[in-house]
Amino acid sequence: MSFKIEIFSQGEELVTGQITDTNATWLSEKLIQMGFTVTRHTTVGDKLEDLVGLLREIAERADCCICTGGLGPTVDDLTAEAVAKAFAKPLEFDPVAYQQMAEYFRQRGRTMPESNRKQAMLPKDSIRLDNEWGTAPGFALKSGQCQFAFVPGVPSEMKQMFREKITPLVLTPFKTQPWKLRTIKTIGLGESDIQACLDTLVFPGAVQLGFRAGSGEVQTKLLFPPDFPETEMNNFTHAVAKQIGDPVFAIDRQDKQKRSIASVLGEVLHNQQHTLCILETISQGLMAAKCLGMESLSESMFAASSEQICTKLNIEAQEDLLVTASEIAEVYRAECGTDYALVQLCNKEAVDSADQKQSVQLYNALATSTDTVTQLNRVSGTIKRKQNQAALLGLDFLRRYLQNNIKGS
Amino acid sequence: MSFKIEIFSQGEELVTGQITDTNATWLSEKLIQMGFTVTRHTTVGDKLEDLVGLLREIAERADCCICTGGLGPTVDDLTAEAVAKAFAKPLEFDPVAYQQMAEYFRQRGRTMPESNRKQAMLPKDSIRLDNEWGTAPGFALKSGQCQFAFVPGVPSEMKQMFREKITPLVLTPFKTQPWKLRTIKTIGLGESDIQACLDTLVFPGAVQLGFRAGSGEVQTKLLFPPDFPETEMNNFTHAVAKQIGDPVFAIDRQDKQKRSIASVLGEVLHNQQHTLCILETISQGLMAAKCLGMESLSESMFAASSEQICTKLNIEAQEDLLVTASEIAEVYRAECGTDYALVQLCNKEAVDSADQKQSVQLYNALATSTDTVTQLNRVSGTIKRKQNQAALLGLDFLRRYLQNNIKGS
Repeated sequence: MSFKIEIFSQGEELVTGQITDTNATWLSEKLIQMGFTVTRHTTVGDKLEDLVGLLREIAERADCCICTGGLGPTVDDLTAEAVAKAFAKPLEFDPVAYQQMAEYFRQRGRTMPESNRKQAMLPKDSIRLDNEWGTAPGFALKSGQCQFAFVPGVPSEMKQMFREKITPLVLTPFKTQPWKLRTIKTIGLGESDIQACLDTLVFPGAVQLGFRAGSGEVQTKLLFPPDFPETEMNNFTHAVAKQIGDPVFAIDRQDKQKRSIASVLGEVLHNQQHTLCILETISQGLMAAKCLGMESLSESMFAASSEQICTKLNIEAQEDLLVTASEIAEVYRAECGTDYALVQLCNKEAVDSADQKQSVQLYNALATSTDTVTQLNRVSGTIKRKQNQAALLGLDFLRRYLQNNIKGS
Repeated sequence: MSFKIEIFSQGEELVTGQITDTNATWLSEKLIQMGFTVTRHTTVGDKLEDLVGLLREIAERADCCICTGGLGPTVDDLTAEAVAKAFAKPLEFDPVAYQQMAEYFRQRGRTMPESNRKQAMLPKDSIRLDNEWGTAPGFALKSGQCQFAFVPGVPSEMKQMFREKITPLVLTPFKTQPWKLRTIKTIGLGESDIQACLDTLVFPGAVQLGFRAGSGEVQTKLLFPPDFPETEMNNFTHAVAKQIGDPVFAIDRQDKQKRSIASVLGEVLHNQQHTLCILETISQGLMAAKCLGMESLSESMFAASSEQICTKLNIEAQEDLLVTASEIAEVYRAECGTDYALVQLCNKEAVDSADQKQSVQLYNALATSTDTVTQLNRVSGTIKRKQNQAALLGLDFLRRYLQNNIKGS
């Protein structure tokens, strides 16, 4: 059976739009993967009657509810008081919670303000959820059919509390079956392109297909039911990836580290013990910036125009920018003494116009010890989008070369 | 009087955590500034009974409600149907809405699929909100004491519809008094540092103080009530900015364009008709990348170590990295032929260790036609945080020099 779960976020800063509720997103994604049905997110501010009303509503509707925020030491932190009032569970002093908070302050060489005593007042019959990552303890209690868990709203504390307290102590008894997620990551295709790619593929009935697009990369998400056989899952995931083709740069599992284009590139270059230099124009440093942590990147350069680069490297500019890019790549590779040189030029006039409607032609060249290869791309949209797309397409050009060479050899 | 307003977001992709509900944040911020009291955000998925129940709840609780999402052409877009059911307002075919959609497709040389006809079915007695930015029209209707407005969930369409349809047609009758927002932007201080700075300042009772921290910059937000006198507001805002001091790089008004450190720098350099080159280490291209759109930036370079830079520029490295940075700045400035050269070196060992706990010392130098100035900074945290902080601190070093020189001259 499927259990209905709700997310309840408390905070004036959320309801007034000062911050976005990323906790609800994070929790929902985790809960769906665990096999719960998330039915509702609700956010309210610091009004006691709103909190009390909401808690009573949820107690009648849901099997489980995770509540974040409102556990701080100040007067506008009202969650425990609201729980006490909503469910007639008066607040009681918890000496262990008090001791833990005092210890937290002691370890940091600070005296605990008297206002923190409030955080050790927990509703009668609740189970304390120890907070090893901050001061406010969480707590869990059942009202009607609904099992509630309350934790602080600070995202780092909330996440730790979810993994180490809520999951084992509150969620395990529900005996849900976790779904399995495979994420196929691509650069250079839109959601609708991928959708069209997959039109001819027959999806096993229970598999859920989803997309997430963000900062230039598109993730195709395959969610498999708990009882879906492992081998079939892997085969189907690879069939989907194969159908999408070369734009796929990684397939992530939910339980493994998430990979970016730069981490994939970094891994290949590290294994090859090869070094890289990058010369960029429209991406203006972002290609190098995205390679953060990649030890193989030795140096990079940005210049506003290809004429500037030619002058600097003492090269005669050719009419064909793709030819110019190749020559620059070879000279820059020699100058930097690296194994690879990745160069991306563009038609400068289009960039200068700053016209969103005008797309920009990219001229990529990669010089290696054995040959020089090139690729054309086109980017469009705002100046910021063009910068980001150009950086990703440049890095993806190198990724495709490296991965195809690995396959080929 | 203050009106209670709620935000209602519809979509399975929101409730399951596939995307974060940034619409609710954006709308709340705008509504608070207009003088509304935002009391609740609710998100539900694609279940008809959930939608119907929620609409009836809100009709009893709020004076106004803005609903986003669920107006698409597919079977899981149920908002109009839910409204019809909740408030006994059967759907009726709106020929004008149909005509507008057909025109939208015609202009794009496409035939409107029959499924879009559904989007022209609006609840009885509702007012159509024309959508000039997409296909689905919105609509407004009153039930009980609550005035509802329904618009598509696509953020770009939602924002346009809010500004040009909801505000004049739905919200104006509420005659709220807009609050006025001033945002003081800083780099290099944390929220608690700023809070401490302002401890001695007496705040006029009605002024609300808030903070927002994000990617290295902290915004101090001052929200003034509608009747707060303009001159006093400006004076108080400047008193706050003065109290915070040099870290302030901009003061934004809600009705003017928002400024970044790069846009402030770009403006000063543009006015001076001066050019710039940048040489970065730990920020790895991000300093240049942040200067996107700044025509004064002529070129930039990244190298993994200061030894590499010294070799490249034919400079003998000094024991004191601040001295080396100065020499590099002078040589690099001459080589690039720019008015300014901004150089940032760091102690490489600390970077290599990739240890989050180990902070990194930054050695900034700025060479101009008349002198060379230097500054030390320290960054800590994850490798990504260090990269971002270093980039911002480098640019802010240049900003402080330029602004102080303007003041001084």
